Amino acid sequence: MTSSNIRVNLPQNSYDIAIAPGSLSQLGNSLSELNIGKKVLLVSNSTIFKHYGEQTINSLQDAGFEACYHLIPAGERHKTPASIRKLYDTALKNRLERSSTLIALGGGVIGDMTGFAAATWLRGINFVQVPTSLLAMVDAAIGGKTGVNHPRGKNLIGAFHQPKRVLIDPQVLTTLPAREFRAGMAEVIKYGVIWDTELFERLEAAKRLDSLRYVDPELLQTILARSVQAKADVVSKDEKEAGLRAILNYGHTIGHGVESLTGYRLVNHGEAVGIGMVVAGELAAAMEMWQPDEAQRQNALIEKTGLPTQIPSMLTARAIADSLKNDKKVKAGKVRFILPTHIGSVTITDDVNPDILHEVLQKNIQKTP
Amino acid sequence: MTSSNIRVNLPQNSYDIAIAPGSLSQLGNSLSELNIGKKVLLVSNSTIFKHYGEQTINSLQDAGFEACYHLIPAGERHKTPASIRKLYDTALKNRLERSSTLIALGGGVIGDMTGFAAATWLRGINFVQVPTSLLAMVDAAIGGKTGVNHPRGKNLIGAFHQPKRVLIDPQVLTTLPAREFRAGMAEVIKYGVIWDTELFERLEAAKRLDSLRYVDPELLQTILARSVQAKADVVSKDEKEAGLRAILNYGHTIGHGVESLTGYRLVNHGEAVGIGMVVAGELAAAMEMWQPDEAQRQNALIEKTGLPTQIPSMLTARAIADSLKNDKKVKAGKVRFILPTHIGSVTITDDVNPDILHEVLQKNIQKTP
Ligand SMILES: NC(=O)c1ccc[n+]([C@@H]2O[C@H](COP(=O)([O-])OP(=O)(O)OC[C@H]3O[C@@H](n4cnc5c(N)ncnc54)[C@H](O)[C@@H]3O)[C@@H](O)[C@H]2O)c1
Ligand SMILES: NC(=O)c1ccc[n+]([C@@H]2O[C@H](COP(=O)([O-])OP(=O)(O)OC[C@H]3O[C@@H](n4cnc5c(N)ncnc54)[C@H](O)[C@@H]3O)[C@@H](O)[C@H]2O)c1
Ligand SMILES: [Zn+2]
Ligand SMILES: [Zn+2]
Repeated sequence: MTSSNIRVNLPQNSYDIAIAPGSLSQLGNSLSELNIGKKVLLVSNSTIFKHYGEQTINSLQDAGFEACYHLIPAGERHKTPASIRKLYDTALKNRLERSSTLIALGGGVIGDMTGFAAATWLRGINFVQVPTSLLAMVDAAIGGKTGVNHPRGKNLIGAFHQPKRVLIDPQVLTTLPAREFRAGMAEVIKYGVIWDTELFERLEAAKRLDSLRYVDPELLQTILARSVQAKADVVSKDEKEAGLRAILNYGHTIGHGVESLTGYRLVNHGEAVGIGMVVAGELAAAMEMWQPDEAQRQNALIEKTGLPTQIPSMLTARAIADSLKNDKKVKAGKVRFILPTHIGSVTITDDVNPDILHEVLQKNIQKTP
Repeated sequence: MTSSNIRVNLPQNSYDIAIAPGSLSQLGNSLSELNIGKKVLLVSNSTIFKHYGEQTINSLQDAGFEACYHLIPAGERHKTPASIRKLYDTALKNRLERSSTLIALGGGVIGDMTGFAAATWLRGINFVQVPTSLLAMVDAAIGGKTGVNHPRGKNLIGAFHQPKRVLIDPQVLTTLPAREFRAGMAEVIKYGVIWDTELFERLEAAKRLDSLRYVDPELLQTILARSVQAKADVVSKDEKEAGLRAILNYGHTIGHGVESLTGYRLVNHGEAVGIGMVVAGELAAAMEMWQPDEAQRQNALIEKTGLPTQIPSMLTARAIADSLKNDKKVKAGKVRFILPTHIGSVTITDDVNPDILHEVLQKNIQKTP
């Protein structure tokens, strides 16, 4: 079976991302090359820990690590400062030192929280990402963004803190619920549109993409490796989101609005991003920045993945437009949009006519049958 | 009147520290050279804000900043995650953006909290230090260590986040309580012992040091500039406390034990450091690493500053020795000591005979009269 190694090059904290089927059972060995102390605290949720906890802990202990674990209830609504405080307590109880390491075994929720705790415990300790959802593998686990939610907004509290290593075992995706797989595919398509024409075309060439069972191991490896490479490229060029990195927010401006207005329940992150890409694409087409047929190809791909492409019918164009002003990516009061120009490249603009935006939003609200 | 500018050179986040009498009223102008957005949130406590709030806010507004403020009750016991949550709420209410800036106007408590909030709000926004206590001027405001206390230990929760600028106006020290001035002098003496022989000798040459009123403006400028330079030198060489920076903990290993065992009330930070330096000095002398007469000169200087030199009588040598094991600077279970070898230089060792430590601690416990 093929495996890939991708390096994130940064001025101070470069690290490797390994993508290798079956690698979870080698976690301990693979970490023992790093200079990360003997004490490791594995952070996960009980669903994931039930599947993979024992083998992970065993692998760590076999490699000579002193391993303990901490479970956080599953779900975005537990991504809070209160969960971080409990994690601190476990870190204290287990006497973690500055050289100790937190390991995130889970999706983006576990990854973001573990990273934030690692960023802020003892002013920063080591951490390692072992993403288990597709979304975390291709996106959340890479790039050092960590954080938790504030009652008034997602990820408002956070820090940049790079992992020492990211270890991706595609085989764990077999237990991932289908809806979560599709959500991750939204980010994969995003990389195709913003960065990697070839990835986009490979996805177009696939017959079905709506479930892992239709994706053969080779295509899966390609999807993972090319997506990870895209994220690593962008992050390497802009560690702290000063400029280029903003393109990763393609589909996210509208997406966040949809997510927050539906209370983060009805629509999950990946689904919201799918909807956001449809809207951004149509906006670019309406502004004559993007060929309508390319926008169509994007929408067809999103549909083939089984993701929704329309804004839930209970939302209004006005509510979404208003919600954008609260986005934390607002700069000097202006909303910035990432808009495609060709498949494989995007541009950033804060010059969007509100009437056109309104019209495009309106057009993409789901009609109740 | 003389003024000084000292640069902290770092791979990514270099910044200037200005020391200039009367500079507080120029804060707005001095910040307008920086690229730090229009919105600033001044963080202070009500004692300090009463003295300097109005002129600071005015200076910011006159320079064109949109300035708001947030007050935290005075005192170390408010240096908590709960205070940070309230600060986040103010940041949210005032719609701070990623380009916005937090300004700390206060002692180390305000500085550490403001820095931590800046490190973790929107994954890191700008911040500026305007230290008002001597301790904050020569120590806390420089070097990017930020944080809050956990119920079980000081500064356990924190992050490295460098300020964009540090602005020191020595004139604000006129309102600083005498006990706080002396506490800051402990850190000044520390720099003399660990780094700067000339600073030590200048302090020795002064007749009295137990109150600001005996320190003429020129000596004060020297004290500030040489102390700041010492801290800037060390921090520039070791941003994240990987090695050298540990020498700044001279006096702090024992000091933290004394502080925590007395509940952070009876003995303040600087006083604890003064006591810690006496113990570390005598330990070094007992281990024949330091000339006893130099240890004596250090103790005489600490005494001249009006700082306590003895461990409070209610503490036992055993309790202090035990407390060291909980210190977050413990590495692989071993306590590290910073011990002087000459005035102006120290060494780091984790090889201290527990019996000698016990004896030295015992000898330095205050005898009740
Ligand atoms: N840091 C970043 O750069 C970044 C980027 C994108 C998203 N995010 C964050 O990531 C989060 C979303 O991540 P997510 O989609 O992974 O959600 P998630 O972590 O909630 O995981 C989704 C669900 O799948 C389950 N799961 C995960 N892996 C599994 C497996 N192998 N087998 C069985 N069940 C499994 C989880 O228990 C959970 O119920 C959001 O909080 C978002 O803000 C962060
Ligand atoms: N970040 C670091 O590198 C670092 C280094 C050393 C200490 N610290 C932290 O700094 C804190 C101690 O700092 P501190 O000694 O400044 O304590 P502090 O901030 O509590 O200030 C001491 C007292 O003096 C008052 N005060 C300050 N300036 C004044 C002025 N000009 N006029 C009148 N009153 C004034 C304050 O209101 C407070 O009551 C501790 O929390 C310690 O952990 C941090
Ligand atoms: Zn996303
Ligand atoms: Zn100190």
